[in-house]
Amino acid sequence: MQPFALSAVEASELIHKRELSCEDLARSTLAQIARYEPEIRAFAYLDPEAVVRRARELDKLTPGHALHGLTFAIKDVIETFDMPTTYNTPAYASHRSGKDAACVATVRALGALVVGKTDTVEFGANGRPAATRNPHNLMHTPGGSSSGSAAAIAAGMAQLAFGTQTGGSIIRPAAYNGVFGFKPTHGVTSSEGAKVYAPSLDTIGWYGRSVADLSLVADALRICDEPSNVPVALRGLKVGLYRGPHWDKVDASGKAALESTAAALAREGAEIVELALPADFESLSAAQQIIIRQEGRRSFLPELLSRPDVMHPLIRQTAENVVGYRHSDLVTAYDTAAMCRSKFDALFRDSGHLDVVLTPPALGEAPYGLDDTGSPACNSIWTLLHAPCISMPTGLGSGGLPVGIQMVTARFGDRRLLDVAWAIQRDLGLGVAPCAHMRSEI
Amino acid sequence: MQPFALSAVEASELIHKRELSCEDLARSTLAQIARYEPEIRAFAYLDPEAVVRRARELDKLTPGHALHGLTFAIKDVIETFDMPTTYNTPAYASHRSGKDAACVATVRALGALVVGKTDTVEFGANGRPAATRNPHNLMHTPGGSSSGSAAAIAAGMAQLAFGTQTGGSIIRPAAYNGVFGFKPTHGVTSSEGAKVYAPSLDTIGWYGRSVADLSLVADALRICDEPSNVPVALRGLKVGLYRGPHWDKVDASGKAALESTAAALAREGAEIVELALPADFESLSAAQQIIIRQEGRRSFLPELLSRPDVMHPLIRQTAENVVGYRHSDLVTAYDTAAMCRSKFDALFRDSGHLDVVLTPPALGEAPYGLDDTGSPACNSIWTLLHAPCISMPTGLGSGGLPVGIQMVTARFGDRRLLDVAWAIQRDLGLGVAPCAHMRSEI
Repeated sequence: MQPFALSAVEASELIHKRELSCEDLARSTLAQIARYEPEIRAFAYLDPEAVVRRARELDKLTPGHALHGLTFAIKDVIETFDMPTTYNTPAYASHRSGKDAACVATVRALGALVVGKTDTVEFGANGRPAATRNPHNLMHTPGGSSSGSAAAIAAGMAQLAFGTQTGGSIIRPAAYNGVFGFKPTHGVTSSEGAKVYAPSLDTIGWYGRSVADLSLVADALRICDEPSNVPVALRGLKVGLYRGPHWDKVDASGKAALESTAAALAREGAEIVELALPADFESLSAAQQIIIRQEGRRSFLPELLSRPDVMHPLIRQTAENVVGYRHSDLVTAYDTAAMCRSKFDALFRDSGHLDVVLTPPALGEAPYGLDDTGSPACNSIWTLLHAPCISMPTGLGSGGLPVGIQMVTARFGDRRLLDVAWAIQRDLGLGVAPCAHMRSEI
Repeated sequence: MQPFALSAVEASELIHKRELSCEDLARSTLAQIARYEPEIRAFAYLDPEAVVRRARELDKLTPGHALHGLTFAIKDVIETFDMPTTYNTPAYASHRSGKDAACVATVRALGALVVGKTDTVEFGANGRPAATRNPHNLMHTPGGSSSGSAAAIAAGMAQLAFGTQTGGSIIRPAAYNGVFGFKPTHGVTSSEGAKVYAPSLDTIGWYGRSVADLSLVADALRICDEPSNVPVALRGLKVGLYRGPHWDKVDASGKAALESTAAALAREGAEIVELALPADFESLSAAQQIIIRQEGRRSFLPELLSRPDVMHPLIRQTAENVVGYRHSDLVTAYDTAAMCRSKFDALFRDSGHLDVVLTPPALGEAPYGLDDTGSPACNSIWTLLHAPCISMPTGLGSGGLPVGIQMVTARFGDRRLLDVAWAIQRDLGLGVAPCAHMRSEI
């Protein structure tokens, strides 16, 4: 196996045993990028020479943290001191930040090697789509807005990647590209230095090639009170099966992914419970829309005043509050969300409590075309609930594109969610959905 | 009256009538800074030549917005594209951001003239104090963390200034320096580009020399659904008088400021109601501490990993979570705060509702010395409630330093609060507490 195709955990072990140099990993990854980037277009910025130079510097140091030397791609709404941050918008085409975003500074301080900036839907919101294509089928969207980060992981162009989620921008691309994606509890990582869209929803998350890879980053960012409690046994695990209000829109492959995973968990001894959420949860999707538009309105005011000429019409509509949302709507949305968060958490705490909720990560396979990045229908209420979410690939659907499952738990249950997901990955034999670009090299 | 001593509204009118040039206002303000900055030390960065150049450019344009040409000081935790942003911390001594924070970009797009960066408590948190001294008595603190911004307004060194509040960092310095200060509803302005400390509390606010000055900025930032509804009549206004749990620690001058204002309002026909908050509000101060430390822990993780050697011990304790707060504490704090927000708002909505709450802005006059910036005891629960707060000076206390009042109302009641405050300023004849530096020039 060539180094680029290693998981983060595998590469980390080899680097710590000095059986793999950071430079060799970097060069292998850069070669993979050079080979497939012209068709995938995952990156908004690359500086291969700088990456090799930094890899050599890392080889001179004794590896400390597990992230030492691992390749990391950064969504281009997240600031980096040494690379442009353009938000995929013309007004910031030449923008360079003087410093790293908090998440980037953290992983760099631990030795991670930033390989480049990945393309994004404009501002991580809803303007211009990324140029990125789905590595499993170039005619299909990789999803959005973290389009390039998810595609880069799928195509072997980085081992780890940061994304952001305000609606469904981490979990949906993870599902569409057949990789592992994690949106932690809102606020559990600093999002300083990432473009602000709707701050009460915006969350930094990341992609990898296994749950263990995702845990490496979770530990680096110190998001959990406890160390890992593995091993978790699937026997006796209580799983809430939630098909959700959009189940009739989920395609057959997406439905099969959920149902077959539930059946497999049941065979392993897990207890599967049909979950019905309380009636007031029905208003959460509308509440999320009110919050995203009202908070987005403030976030894009500077651009509306200074560069309206280059503003995407969709962003401009938000900034101008064309819909006419009022603050009284926003208060109701906030208070409804707060009440539902407390109720949702109780599902995982009270007697007969659930361990996780099992639910679709998206409406199925990635849609055809590059303009429509797909629907966040399966994501927005979990984002609003501030709940940690993980997306895991289960295989390919009838259209040849990946499908998977999503699991969700209570706020700050990130450790438990990762541990349960790891057990499920292991016992059900889940892994990154095979993609031609990876297969040809392994 | 020399131009520097004009209120923002007065200067704006003269500029729009072409009776005052932006350059003359800038030069007058810079002369005032040159004269008193050596003793006040309000500024962390000044570039007088650049200010004059920009003022000349503004004079070539037709004044559009009311902010055109007005002098604006920016707290040094808020990024500016053309000036350093140091957070008063050694690790960022040479930091320059590639762009303006959202609030700065907004007022600059409307023609405001940024005169410099104002000194702050380290990171706007609790490390190294600002070098700033109280213009009313150089041996006393100006309060913190927005020390330089409030002092600059008091000493005639700018007409408007941005600050930030996570505990009591806008309202307390306003009271100590005898100026008008406003902390709007949390989230009603974008705080992008301001140093993140505890994002669910961090709020951009501002200082001026009258309520009308504060309203200029509120309108520029589009924080209100409605235009101003002035005139408000004091007769029939329902005011909740809240002395608070720290009343026994408020000094005699601070007590007199509150009681005499309540009495004056009653004479004007307002109905003064003794307010008792529900019992569960007693836990809000502790909840605010848990949130500020837990969120602050994440915010300072990059510095802890990359520059622990230059980290202030207090910031480091937060980053290392020395107290050992757990996520379960944080969930309880969040849910308690959310429930109390809804209950607090109801005081202003239900039958027999209040218009505003009248409460102390600080424990009285500014303490002696520069190391202790005073207590946020009178501020932290309002910040946690996300409620808009305004601080108004009422005069000088027995120690010769300013005292004042604070008014608070429901979330997103910013317009109503400003309108009521304007009526009170007008009918009770309130104004900036006179300071020797201002008097000598008028």
